Amino acid sequence: MEKVNFAQKFSLFSDYCKPRIVGEFNDNYVKVSKHKGEFVWHSHKTEDELFMVTKGKLCIKLRDKDIWIEPGEFVIVPRGVEHCPVAEEETHIILIEPKSTVNTGDVEDKLTVKDLQWI
Amino acid sequence: MEKVNFAQKFSLFSDYCKPRIVGEFNDNYVKVSKHKGEFVWHSHKTEDELFMVTKGKLCIKLRDKDIWIEPGEFVIVPRGVEHCPVAEEETHIILIEPKSTVNTGDVEDKLTVKDLQWI
Repeated sequence: MEKVNFAQKFSLFSDYCKPRIVGEFNDNYVKVSKHKGEFVWHSHKTEDELFMVTKGKLCIKLRDKDIWIEPGEFVIVPRGVEHCPVAEEETHIILIEPKSTVNTGDVEDKLTVKDLQWI
Repeated sequence: MEKVNFAQKFSLFSDYCKPRIVGEFNDNYVKVSKHKGEFVWHSHKTEDELFMVTKGKLCIKLRDKDIWIEPGEFVIVPRGVEHCPVAEEETHIILIEPKSTVNTGDVEDKLTVKDLQWI
């Protein structure tokens, strides 16, 4: 049982759109991921997804509006809601979601991560 | 569906050791709480508990060691592990845990919150 420092974890990788696990509690993972550019439109059928940001600015595009989050803020995307995360500059994201959650949800894409790893 | 700003939520109350709900996802709540001084030793029989800090410094006392967390860090206290949060100065805490989690766990105390509210 040790604490986790987000900046230290983000210093260990540089690729985009590839989440890594940094914590596990109950049936959830805490993940970190770097983003730049537009991700892929998708939704998660049975999972709500919590987004936080530690650096940069993340736009969660929804079909009817955009929600911008910065460090010190979070947003929860409910199950079934189509969304597309977009970052204009390099942005460091924390995700908290059920262990079953796949990064591209119900969409099979080249960005789909099938071998989620701890870091 | 709106984003939540932690600093804005913390500006709405000033009492210590009284968590409020600021988000809900899957079977979890995101809560905020201000602490100063020593809490009460307790554990949660069936729930792991995630602690983050947005301001100040939190000491999670365990029976065999202390873990200090500051902004940008988190710690997960596994179910069944006795712990006692302590803050020397006013510290702003984010808790993420199952909806069923009671702040003092298996201990009935004057600090036990029975009427958990949204803020």
